[in-house]
Amino acid sequence: MTQTVKKPLSQLQRALNRSVTVRLKSNLEYRGVMVNVDPHMNMMLIDAQEYNAGALSANYGRVVIRGNNVLFVKIEETLK
Amino acid sequence: MTQTVKKPLSQLQRALNRSVTVRLKSNLEYRGVMVNVDPHMNMMLIDAQEYNAGALSANYGRVVIRGNNVLFVKIEETLK
Amino acid sequence: MTQTVKKPLSQLQRALNRSVTVRLKSNLEYRGVMVNVDPHMNMMLIDAQEYNAGALSANYGRVVIRGNNVLFVKIEETLK
Amino acid sequence: MTQTVKKPLSQLQRALNRSVTVRLKSNLEYRGVMVNVDPHMNMMLIDAQEYNAGALSANYGRVVIRGNNVLFVKIEETLK
Amino acid sequence: MTQTVKKPLSQLQRALNRSVTVRLKSNLEYRGVMVNVDPHMNMMLIDAQEYNAGALSANYGRVVIRGNNVLFVKIEETLK
Amino acid sequence: MTQTVKKPLSQLQRALNRSVTVRLKSNLEYRGVMVNVDPHMNMMLIDAQEYNAGALSANYGRVVIRGNNVLFVKIEETLK
Amino acid sequence: MTQTVKKPLSQLQRALNRSVTVRLKSNLEYRGVMVNVDPHMNMMLIDAQEYNAGALSANYGRVVIRGNNVLFVKIEETLK
Repeated sequence: MTQTVKKPLSQLQRALNRSVTVRLKSNLEYRGVMVNVDPHMNMMLIDAQEYNAGALSANYGRVVIRGNNVLFVKIEETLK
Repeated sequence: MTQTVKKPLSQLQRALNRSVTVRLKSNLEYRGVMVNVDPHMNMMLIDAQEYNAGALSANYGRVVIRGNNVLFVKIEETLK
Repeated sequence: MTQTVKKPLSQLQRALNRSVTVRLKSNLEYRGVMVNVDPHMNMMLIDAQEYNAGALSANYGRVVIRGNNVLFVKIEETLK
Repeated sequence: MTQTVKKPLSQLQRALNRSVTVRLKSNLEYRGVMVNVDPHMNMMLIDAQEYNAGALSANYGRVVIRGNNVLFVKIEETLK
Repeated sequence: MTQTVKKPLSQLQRALNRSVTVRLKSNLEYRGVMVNVDPHMNMMLIDAQEYNAGALSANYGRVVIRGNNVLFVKIEETLK
Repeated sequence: MTQTVKKPLSQLQRALNRSVTVRLKSNLEYRGVMVNVDPHMNMMLIDAQEYNAGALSANYGRVVIRGNNVLFVKIEETLK
Repeated sequence: MTQTVKKPLSQLQRALNRSVTVRLKSNLEYRGVMVNVDPHMNMMLIDAQEYNAGALSANYGRVVIRGNNVLFVKIEETLK
């Protein structure tokens, strides 16, 4: 337990410009490149796809998601 | 990661006078010109259309949306 | 972007004594003259009508609406 | 716009000892004399009746309503 | 309006050791002696009965209710 | 009213190491020994059982419950 | 009561690098290694599985869960 522990919001900051999958409470899911994020988990995605119950339902060039709707953010391992 | 990262709310401020699509938690959607916005995502749209489940349901000359209802804001690439 | 940007809550303040339509999260709608409003969007309407699913359901001489229920405020262009 | 604007919560304070109708988010309605109220819209009513879907469902000598449940407060024009 | 107005939370404090009926948002109701209460309406009841849809469903010797679930507190006029 | 009134959260602190029953808003119920609790009613239970609609559904050696889900905490009179 | 009482959030901090099961309000469940957590219960899990109504529904290499969705965190007794 002597290693430096990175807090979850810092980890999100470090994931900027990565592909992420954002699940909302309403089960909508957004996949895109997270270009910024703040401590409320408000974030902007670019080149995003919306999935509704697993089916592609819309495309968004630039979309700002309000953080209080977020259930989780999955960080993809591949850089943009 | 050395570039200046713009926070999501600053990005919304920079999108003033652009056309936006605002999806609410209740699935209502508003499309109009965002003439102002604050850090809670309270915002005023002008010349706005309301869509309910994809169908045009109302027109609003000037409408103030309370930010806590917002799911996301899609920024259109074309200026007003 | 050099013009003075009025914030949404200031815009509501400037709309005092105008007719407004207030939609609540529960789909109730109130139409009346907004005689005051605070930063939480608590507001008092006078000479208000309540519409439930589009049908007139009640009349209120003076009613104070708690702001956290508000979905949006539509500002009518005609003065009282 | 040069007149003094009374804020909505001040207006509630000025309505103390008047009859009010308080609608809650759950559609319950309470009619009684509002003997005190605070900025959260917590309030005490005396000699109150509860209406459920328009039908009288209970009587309360003294009842404290938690403000966050309040949808609106209608101020009756007659003093106690 | 020159009389001293007691605020709703002070009125609850003055009702300590009285019998109360506490209705929760979920329609559960608790009847017991309120031995303490704080400004969030967190409270401890002793010798409490739980009513679900009007039917007695449980007994509690000592129970702490989290205030944010409270719809209203009815103060009974009889001391413990 | 001259006796020292213990606040509800202090009463929970005094109940550490006692058996408690914790009802959540979702009607899940947890019975175990409350080994710590904070002012948000976040708490850790050890040797806990989960009951769903009255039926035992799981066992937990150590579980941290997030306080905002809590409906009430019943304090059992027997020490661990 | 003279022993040092560890608060629930400190206990979560002490459980870093352990396997945990995180139940959300929506009944989704995540099992993985909790590599960090903050006072809102925002946390990052690695090597996580998602269970929906008890059935494995997805795998996540790195996922940040927003704390306000958390119902409870079960701490497994085995180190990673």
